Amino acid sequence: MPTQTPIAPSIIVHGGAWAIPASQTVASREGVEAAASLGYDLLNSGASALDAVEAAVRALEDNPVFDAGVGSCLNSAGGVEMDAAIMTDSVEATIRFGAVAALSNACNPISVARAVMERTPHCLLVGEGADAFAKEVGAEGASVEELVTPAAVEEWQRFKRYSAAVNDLFNSGHDTVGAVVRDANGTLACATSTGGITYKRVGRVGDSPIIGAGLFCEDGVGACSTTGHGESILKVGLARTALLFMESRSPGQAAEVALAKMKKRTGGCGGIVLLDNNGEWSADFTTTKMAWAAVGKDGVLKSGIDREHLKL
Amino acid sequence: MPTQTPIAPSIIVHGGAWAIPASQTVASREGVEAAASLGYDLLNSGASALDAVEAAVRALEDNPVFDAGVGSCLNSAGGVEMDAAIMTDSVEATIRFGAVAALSNACNPISVARAVMERTPHCLLVGEGADAFAKEVGAEGASVEELVTPAAVEEWQRFKRYSAAVNDLFNSGHDTVGAVVRDANGTLACATSTGGITYKRVGRVGDSPIIGAGLFCEDGVGACSTTGHGESILKVGLARTALLFMESRSPGQAAEVALAKMKKRTGGCGGIVLLDNNGEWSADFTTTKMAWAAVGKDGVLKSGIDREHLKL
Repeated sequence: MPTQTPIAPSIIVHGGAWAIPASQTVASREGVEAAASLGYDLLNSGASALDAVEAAVRALEDNPVFDAGVGSCLNSAGGVEMDAAIMTDSVEATIRFGAVAALSNACNPISVARAVMERTPHCLLVGEGADAFAKEVGAEGASVEELVTPAAVEEWQRFKRYSAAVNDLFNSGHDTVGAVVRDANGTLACATSTGGITYKRVGRVGDSPIIGAGLFCEDGVGACSTTGHGESILKVGLARTALLFMESRSPGQAAEVALAKMKKRTGGCGGIVLLDNNGEWSADFTTTKMAWAAVGKDGVLKSGIDREHLKL
Repeated sequence: MPTQTPIAPSIIVHGGAWAIPASQTVASREGVEAAASLGYDLLNSGASALDAVEAAVRALEDNPVFDAGVGSCLNSAGGVEMDAAIMTDSVEATIRFGAVAALSNACNPISVARAVMERTPHCLLVGEGADAFAKEVGAEGASVEELVTPAAVEEWQRFKRYSAAVNDLFNSGHDTVGAVVRDANGTLACATSTGGITYKRVGRVGDSPIIGAGLFCEDGVGACSTTGHGESILKVGLARTALLFMESRSPGQAAEVALAKMKKRTGGCGGIVLLDNNGEWSADFTTTKMAWAAVGKDGVLKSGIDREHLKL
């Protein structure tokens, strides 16, 4: 039996690409660092890519500074509708993907997405059907009051007064947490979770739970999670576009070219975390800021939030 | 000003890739022929790709033999939840995409999807929010009773009695109508619409409204609409996969290779209609049957339903 070189695991997480206000930069950076460290420690203890990526995204969902799980934005009716998705691919197994959209009653939408993947023959459940499924599988429930933070309410009230300004918020791309992981077996996984955009129309779903747009992974190529202006990300299928570019480019070049293509074709801005099959990675964005943190093959935690911290 | 060679328009439609029973083959083939002819006549009168693709899919939705609009399958609760999407791309304009999922109250989901594209800053509305939007824009309403056919009720009752057999139906891929179009300006458009799978879980969404899976078009490359086992189509992003293969292959080869990739990675079967930037086209499937009809650059109506009618 040939001796295999052990694979050093990697994880990169993001907390959303948007115009993060100064009051939230410290908490956002600490939040992504904590999530990346948690995921990496799990990987180092032999956890699967799926377990690590779910744990990292749960940590981001539980952190009220991020717009996912607790801290989700409110829709135009003052309700919460969350979207999440998880995906894994490895040469030994089939492609696995699960997602929820317009879910309103669970603390951790990413775990409900995983349950869709593991406990149904389906990939995507939406709306009331997703809520009913979350209850059925015993996902930890949450009322709107428990999910909503004072900051989210304040933002909602501001947009209610000035609803003409909603397009400004769309263009600022306030949404989504995500993670990409390679485990010690070389298996790839990715995940995204979001509360969407403040004052969004009831039932609006962006890119986050959509395979190929908010996330994509392909064995032998890599894994990607995206954030930013959801409708632009959907139209160009940003996550898959980044992976396609990575077939002939480094992760840093692929992220840059993919974001440039989106900007050119849709005018939209966003961010990408990207990992190739060798554990090389990139975090890049065209918004003002994006909180990201990574532990790569060298085991060193890195993070950033401004353009000068960019890891291309 | 240079004289441009006039572009001969093309349209290809499908009525779903599955084990179409003998009792429905004549009506299915007549239905796709009528929809393709309708769309082609519009194109010949100067209609846009978007108008032609919407009209063709509306004709398929209105035909009770197909599982979309009237004739939709019933979910496990005996309700109707329909999904539809429309997309266009041309070098002069930005990419445009609109979709609905788990819509329950409109005759023509494709027209609601188009309204999402044209009247909101969003791309995808689901569930109650989609129903509210359909009412708001004055889409022609429909009750469950109006959408449901005796055949759909009979199938639902059969699956209610034998719910263990649901996986058989999933694998037979009973779903979706769609169309791809190139108009006289060379603009591409594609559209899909479906009532999903009988006895599906409430809130289940398949590939049809998901960009890159149920449909995709890219200026300079082509347009694609898919049908079949929704979860398999989602996992491999079948429509975009077919277009990627078409960058170095004919439409016929690209459809064949894309369906083979899906079969290999997921075990799932399905069908594809595919059109390249020059108006060359293909209709192919790995299910037992798929009803398709096309009018290509030569203006001749072709159609098929069995493998011996295959146009690779």
